Amino acid sequence: MKILVINSGSSSLKYQVYDMTNESVLAKGLVERIGMDSSILNHKPTGKEEITEVSEILEHTTAIRKVLDKLTHEVHGVMSSISEIQAVGHRVVHGGEAFKESALVTDEVKAEIRRLIDLAPLHNPAAMMGINAAELNMPGIPQVVVFDTAFHQTMPEHAYLYAIPRVLYNKYKVRRYGAHGTSHDFVSKAAAEFLDRPIEDLKIITCHVGNGGSLTAIKNGVSVDTSMGMTPLEGLMMGTRSGDLDPAIVPYVMNKEDLTINEVNSMLNKHSGLLAISGISSDMREITEGMEKGEANSTLAFNMYEYRLRKYIGSYAAAMNGVDVIVFTAGVGENSVVLRQRVLEQLTYLGVEVDEELNKIRSGEPRRISTANSKVEVLVIPTNEELVIARDTHRIVGATQ
Amino acid sequence: MKILVINSGSSSLKYQVYDMTNESVLAKGLVERIGMDSSILNHKPTGKEEITEVSEILEHTTAIRKVLDKLTHEVHGVMSSISEIQAVGHRVVHGGEAFKESALVTDEVKAEIRRLIDLAPLHNPAAMMGINAAELNMPGIPQVVVFDTAFHQTMPEHAYLYAIPRVLYNKYKVRRYGAHGTSHDFVSKAAAEFLDRPIEDLKIITCHVGNGGSLTAIKNGVSVDTSMGMTPLEGLMMGTRSGDLDPAIVPYVMNKEDLTINEVNSMLNKHSGLLAISGISSDMREITEGMEKGEANSTLAFNMYEYRLRKYIGSYAAAMNGVDVIVFTAGVGENSVVLRQRVLEQLTYLGVEVDEELNKIRSGEPRRISTANSKVEVLVIPTNEELVIARDTHRIVGATQ
Repeated sequence: MKILVINSGSSSLKYQVYDMTNESVLAKGLVERIGMDSSILNHKPTGKEEITEVSEILEHTTAIRKVLDKLTHEVHGVMSSISEIQAVGHRVVHGGEAFKESALVTDEVKAEIRRLIDLAPLHNPAAMMGINAAELNMPGIPQVVVFDTAFHQTMPEHAYLYAIPRVLYNKYKVRRYGAHGTSHDFVSKAAAEFLDRPIEDLKIITCHVGNGGSLTAIKNGVSVDTSMGMTPLEGLMMGTRSGDLDPAIVPYVMNKEDLTINEVNSMLNKHSGLLAISGISSDMREITEGMEKGEANSTLAFNMYEYRLRKYIGSYAAAMNGVDVIVFTAGVGENSVVLRQRVLEQLTYLGVEVDEELNKIRSGEPRRISTANSKVEVLVIPTNEELVIARDTHRIVGATQ
Repeated sequence: MKILVINSGSSSLKYQVYDMTNESVLAKGLVERIGMDSSILNHKPTGKEEITEVSEILEHTTAIRKVLDKLTHEVHGVMSSISEIQAVGHRVVHGGEAFKESALVTDEVKAEIRRLIDLAPLHNPAAMMGINAAELNMPGIPQVVVFDTAFHQTMPEHAYLYAIPRVLYNKYKVRRYGAHGTSHDFVSKAAAEFLDRPIEDLKIITCHVGNGGSLTAIKNGVSVDTSMGMTPLEGLMMGTRSGDLDPAIVPYVMNKEDLTINEVNSMLNKHSGLLAISGISSDMREITEGMEKGEANSTLAFNMYEYRLRKYIGSYAAAMNGVDVIVFTAGVGENSVVLRQRVLEQLTYLGVEVDEELNKIRSGEPRRISTANSKVEVLVIPTNEELVIARDTHRIVGATQ
């Protein structure tokens, strides 16, 4: 079965085509600047020459049509007919409490995703555009939605509720949902496989740290806590997001600077984090370079980022009364040698022992970076959210046929 | 030297008189409902009969005059003349970055406390009323201010800064200040004394949990992190405060419910926490009773409270790369056997071993509740913020004479 995986943003569309007979990627690509002038389509067929095309792509239906053209293109294509694609899998950010797992798209499912727009006003409308665009271009082809939140629906009530008036949960479903669920799910299962131990016996802390970032405490294979909250703002310090802060700062700053609700949200989500503290970049690579040059603000930004990440690891060790495995993944987690080193060398109280040489190895493969004596296994596992979406789609569509 | 210690609220005034020759309390009391009709003065002289008087007390100067009358009263008094009081010590909630330690009151100090009203709009004006009222009643007597925040001024930058635009720190001093500093200071020093170990060698986590609550990580005798933030809202779940939550919830709820800045602050500070979740009380004793009767909301409130406290302990263990001593203090910390038990039995990964029988003993004395085998010493130490204020006042006034 060939599966098209779509991750649709408000003005972008990422895609991958999988051949599920061997889980190989046939092609992947990205459409950017949808709805703006000079939209860009970058198409990368496996084993063939990639192509970048600039044109006017005014909305998502056109974007998918152009992608399908590329997939069957005589030079850059990877299949002779679009009919070879037997299913489409979509990433959807917010599944609320309705979706505890991935689902086949039906009218009811679409209505529910629309109802959840209130909780994810930026993301869920974009996902709906992707779903509708795929339906228009590929009528009759089954579609599956895979939610960033679903993996975390196993959290117990005492972990997902906030200590605020209950009416806010009853009326608006204000609670912790978390995110990056497909990634936390994938790397925790991959960690158990790598260690050849049943996941049901493990206490795992997965650190998905990229431009956005979240940690998850996974006990007996299920998410019991995660650092992102009702929205992706809570938790770790991120590229441009503040992460945790005294909630009283929000009204304080709104009052002082006469900010609207939209402005304060924008400040906390887009103009905070590494960018705000370093003053130079939201990208950990540039922060690390700045630090290595002795730049004070970059050093401070790095230290805050590292410190907050380490505190979350400690917090989740307490949440599970221990930790067997710590997994680093995503852009920063997979690539920042210095961040992992600095976090881990200050967790010796847990029995963590990092192998400095193993930690320096760069590879796209799952690997151990702790010593043989370490009481906690520390792994780096490249995440693959698209593969989880493809697998879920394969499983769900397969089951219906 | 006899010292009057004053803790002045906006409509209340707590006081204690110390004889510093032996640090004994000569009298203590409370004036409530200042400025309302039927103000109440409750005066408790040590070894004599206490007295409660209802009258009109319209402001703090009158309140202190009435207190001084009681201190020299022929039946309920504890001294022959007010001139025996050689110094007054005041609790002040917010000392900002200006006050890293207690200070003798001067015009300059008063001006600085007034400037800090912006950061503690409810608390610092009340402290100023107490200071002015004491000056009017006891002219020429030296006064000292002791700040809740001062102990935490040793926190490193990466712990006290928020990951938000730097201009908010530069312009408004938005940062973490913490609170309960006199208590965290007192119990950490008392813990080192109890253990007969130099505080410079210890990693201590002090849990000041009462109606309000905060945890502090104390390394080598100084505060390196604390759970309250710019305001007392951040951190633990409390009696009526939410503690940590996704900051995006603030604008979300303001928008949904059309709340003003004052209303959302009031909701998060006065109508959240244990009260909101249990639906019955902000008092841990009633929550525990509810839980013991099998009441679901009380059980949930307890579980959330315990879980969040435990996660903070874990987080601070990671912050210091280990913990040698955990101290419980304040109303809940000193008295809730079940809370301590539940927290500690889920920290065995740190080597914590609680002695269930020792934990059940109720006493006003510092005591150990961990077993001899426990890798972490767990102590219950009754706090005494008034004594810290009296000692600081004694030291500072003594040094000036």
